[in-house]
Amino acid sequence: MAGDMRLNRLIDHTLLKPEATSDDIRRLCAEAVEESFYSACLNTHFVSVAARELEGTDVKVCSIAGFPLGAVDSKVKAFEARRAVEAGADEIDMVLNVGAVKSADYSLVFDDIAGVAEACGKALLKVIIEAALLTDEEKSDACRIAVKAGAGFVKSSTGFGPPGANVGDIAIMRKAVGPDIGVKASAGIRTAAFALELIEAGADRIGTSAGIQIMREYMESR
Amino acid sequence: MAGDMRLNRLIDHTLLKPEATSDDIRRLCAEAVEESFYSACLNTHFVSVAARELEGTDVKVCSIAGFPLGAVDSKVKAFEARRAVEAGADEIDMVLNVGAVKSADYSLVFDDIAGVAEACGKALLKVIIEAALLTDEEKSDACRIAVKAGAGFVKSSTGFGPPGANVGDIAIMRKAVGPDIGVKASAGIRTAAFALELIEAGADRIGTSAGIQIMREYMESR
Repeated sequence: MAGDMRLNRLIDHTLLKPEATSDDIRRLCAEAVEESFYSACLNTHFVSVAARELEGTDVKVCSIAGFPLGAVDSKVKAFEARRAVEAGADEIDMVLNVGAVKSADYSLVFDDIAGVAEACGKALLKVIIEAALLTDEEKSDACRIAVKAGAGFVKSSTGFGPPGANVGDIAIMRKAVGPDIGVKASAGIRTAAFALELIEAGADRIGTSAGIQIMREYMESR
Repeated sequence: MAGDMRLNRLIDHTLLKPEATSDDIRRLCAEAVEESFYSACLNTHFVSVAARELEGTDVKVCSIAGFPLGAVDSKVKAFEARRAVEAGADEIDMVLNVGAVKSADYSLVFDDIAGVAEACGKALLKVIIEAALLTDEEKSDACRIAVKAGAGFVKSSTGFGPPGANVGDIAIMRKAVGPDIGVKASAGIRTAAFALELIEAGADRIGTSAGIQIMREYMESR
């Protein structure tokens, strides 16, 4: 990455805790505008609030589908994505069907993702593989299936289960998808140094709830 | 509880881990039949598998909606419940909108639950309040709203966030709903002794993935 990289433009400023209120989401959006983060990332219940708050800014609305377990009925996942996009989401982070990956039922994995991709329309689809639950081979397979099924990004982790992003997984994911698809590292990223390591390993988006602290550290270190 | 209580008939035998496979769910159902548990509880993707496995037995199919964050769009929650019931679920454990409870937006809390209750039709609706995130007053309020909105049960915890069931919360929930509504204790219940404490405090259903171990301990202690 060049020295003039704008780290803030790689950050999805994220608040997915169940107890978040509309006021918390409005604060999240204001911070995202202030820092010029790439997006604010929030649960589907808040998409319309965020779309209003972020209208006319350069900050995108990012929401989720089948999150965080990925084991919901495929039609529900697609419906969730469609509703979020209709309410103003620019990007959808869906969780693939982890159990189907573990069973090597790759046609189910594909169909589940393709259904959400169709529901997304022009919105960007990111597919969360929950890497910590997969073998290295399954990580690669999952990434390749996600791309074939219409994903524009693959993403490492939900943050609600096993450990989050690590450098090794991001390298595997980048290798699997090649240079033209995005790789989002997420969960447990709380320092600028770690964010930069993940970017070095191949990430071009960082999902974190610690974006403000990360930017402060980053600016101080330059 | 009387000495002849059939503890097994109070247990929802539960497997909600994202990496569970269809084979794992078939095993869960077989165990539920063997032990004559009240239900097998699983993600919506597996409802049709479980309905086939449990057909003709006395074990119910229990699934979920808006789980575990509760912050999905209300229409998605209702759609998820409807799909699960159509696929054969007898009971739906939904998560209420925790953020709306924290904001004291009780009309939103009510409407969100009522939409799922309608989608459930004759299926039993349990409303998870995620007690560990609420004040005692919010716990009582949430339980009373759930009952008004059509819940047949209130339930303590998802098991995917903060700590699970405890005796104090179950007592508060039982007091809030009175004798005619069910109270399900869930998350972190791994011993017969703890299950019996929770039942003593007012629970009449136990959600656990340790049901077999609990029954073994229970039978040995009698």
